Amino acid sequence: MLGTTFLSEVERLFEFSKEVFLKMGCNEQDAHLAAKVLQSSDLRGIDSHGVARLSGYVRLWKAGRIKANAVGKVIHETPSTATYDADSGLGLVMASNAMDIAIEKAKNVGSGWVAVQNSNHFGIAGYHAMKALEHDMIGMALTNASPLVAPTYSKERLLGTNPICFAIPAGQEKPVVIDLATSSAANGKLEIAQRVGKDVPNGWVQDGEGQSTEDAFALKKGGSLLPLGSNRDLGSHKGFGLSAFVDIFSGVLSGANYGPWVPPFVSFLPLAENMPGKGIGHFVGAWRVDGFQSTESFGKNMDQWIRRFKSAETIEGQSEVIIPGEPEDRAQKIREVEGIPLVQKVYEDLKNIGDELGIELNFLK
Amino acid sequence: MLGTTFLSEVERLFEFSKEVFLKMGCNEQDAHLAAKVLQSSDLRGIDSHGVARLSGYVRLWKAGRIKANAVGKVIHETPSTATYDADSGLGLVMASNAMDIAIEKAKNVGSGWVAVQNSNHFGIAGYHAMKALEHDMIGMALTNASPLVAPTYSKERLLGTNPICFAIPAGQEKPVVIDLATSSAANGKLEIAQRVGKDVPNGWVQDGEGQSTEDAFALKKGGSLLPLGSNRDLGSHKGFGLSAFVDIFSGVLSGANYGPWVPPFVSFLPLAENMPGKGIGHFVGAWRVDGFQSTESFGKNMDQWIRRFKSAETIEGQSEVIIPGEPEDRAQKIREVEGIPLVQKVYEDLKNIGDELGIELNFLK
Repeated sequence: MLGTTFLSEVERLFEFSKEVFLKMGCNEQDAHLAAKVLQSSDLRGIDSHGVARLSGYVRLWKAGRIKANAVGKVIHETPSTATYDADSGLGLVMASNAMDIAIEKAKNVGSGWVAVQNSNHFGIAGYHAMKALEHDMIGMALTNASPLVAPTYSKERLLGTNPICFAIPAGQEKPVVIDLATSSAANGKLEIAQRVGKDVPNGWVQDGEGQSTEDAFALKKGGSLLPLGSNRDLGSHKGFGLSAFVDIFSGVLSGANYGPWVPPFVSFLPLAENMPGKGIGHFVGAWRVDGFQSTESFGKNMDQWIRRFKSAETIEGQSEVIIPGEPEDRAQKIREVEGIPLVQKVYEDLKNIGDELGIELNFLK
Repeated sequence: MLGTTFLSEVERLFEFSKEVFLKMGCNEQDAHLAAKVLQSSDLRGIDSHGVARLSGYVRLWKAGRIKANAVGKVIHETPSTATYDADSGLGLVMASNAMDIAIEKAKNVGSGWVAVQNSNHFGIAGYHAMKALEHDMIGMALTNASPLVAPTYSKERLLGTNPICFAIPAGQEKPVVIDLATSSAANGKLEIAQRVGKDVPNGWVQDGEGQSTEDAFALKKGGSLLPLGSNRDLGSHKGFGLSAFVDIFSGVLSGANYGPWVPPFVSFLPLAENMPGKGIGHFVGAWRVDGFQSTESFGKNMDQWIRRFKSAETIEGQSEVIIPGEPEDRAQKIREVEGIPLVQKVYEDLKNIGDELGIELNFLK
């Protein structure tokens, strides 16, 4: 049954998610927003961060680690910066709120930056960064996450897959959305290999002794993911550096936890001892394009940038250069019409949540 | 003679560089600053970006592409952002000036961002970003550069090695300085392999057809450097995305050139046709730490971050995890005492400059 895929209707799946957040005790606005962030991930083809995570949020809520009626607040600020206490709320909601504050600051003084403490998993970084686009701003979103990645030369898991996202508006062309985990591969890719019983490329993961391996189960056996660059020769110290940047901005600068102390997403795993901060942390912000030049001339040059890269001569066997954000945009166009595919495991998770919370499963096509 | 290394005395080598910039027509202050940026690179062990580049700057000046008496100016601004026209000046000087403006803005409103157009090679990103440290700020510096790197799936050189640098202050510990090219390896590393007649690791470079190769001369034969991640499986699209971020911020947002239109550092190479902007571009900025929390508590947590990573359990054969910035800091401690080593080729370059400009070579130990 592992290969079975169910197709869900976009809006009805959204209503189901929203109903789950309402049952958890979120108010109408927060439930709507949280469901919207998950929907955005599913539409953009990032299956690992959409409704596939819904059961995880429910379990964290049941474990008392997510507060559904949380009220975030700014606890420190300057005209262009702020620190935001997310009150143990849903990261999906709190990071979006923080981005609203950053955008407001950028309207006033050209750029705005909000470090978020005391939060939880915020979904896809892209959702939050892309909020800047409709204001003719460039958005940035970072978050730290449960430790799964070992720094170069270490066998300890000290960093999350710590994503970096920049969303950059264009003119006639689609925005450029650079959204990447700072590990060489995401855990979700290992899980796909596990499901089909395949090895993974050398450079994704190391075993418990720090030896590179092709075993898709290495992480489950006590190994670690590798930073972008995979090994020292190919620049894993750069991936480590980028991940460190994300961890320090999201965790240290905000007053959240960092490194090995970041709380796990999996609710049954114990929290670390002597945690130095509060919850997990994010860092979001926005630069106004017209803080540097007119949005018109910037848009024109972005179009030229995109078209030049798009028309680059390709290597044999490849038909085009892929602009960052293009695959997600294509997925969205298809899924908005055809619906969102759910693998068996996710469908069963949703069914269990529905049964438990008394919500009807009417989202299949 | 390829292996010969000369040892130079730090301050006398600095005076030599400064004298070269004075002879080019820089004023006292700019010549001092430009020589300081080169010295910082040599002290930090980044031999490729120190006096090894001096002859390149001289040639660009002789070719009329660097204006020694340039006067940069802000051409657009908001309280936290600005665009700076570098007037075809030395990037070494202009990026540093731009960083001063960013720091001033950060003092006023919490953060400051300056996009620089119409500039030239700025030396090491680290010098500019680290200027923020003495103000208890986090510094960032980006620059685009001559196209040497191919995007994933392409055989065209469309991007520079486009570095990203973040300089983050700590408490008792040394600052964390993350300074990385967004290619899997720098061109300088290929040159070292060429000199000793060795192959390079698979994943650094591809040939003119876009096939990965271990040939250290592949770049000279029409190939390209590869983005961080090396190939699609190991995440080269992420390295491409990061390089795109640097190019767009440095080039498009500033009004400089971008992508394949970035002017080459090598003075005898022709400029591209139909250049869309002015010169090369940088993007520098600073966040005030106390825009988010007290510098004391941030410093304390940074110390804990550094110590935890430093004490991480290592893989066999390695004795420690290297914190970003640590190797450069160690090199500086040694070189401040022992002097700066110069390879034969660099020594001869400097001798030729000295002969030509009538400056005495008295910097050898």
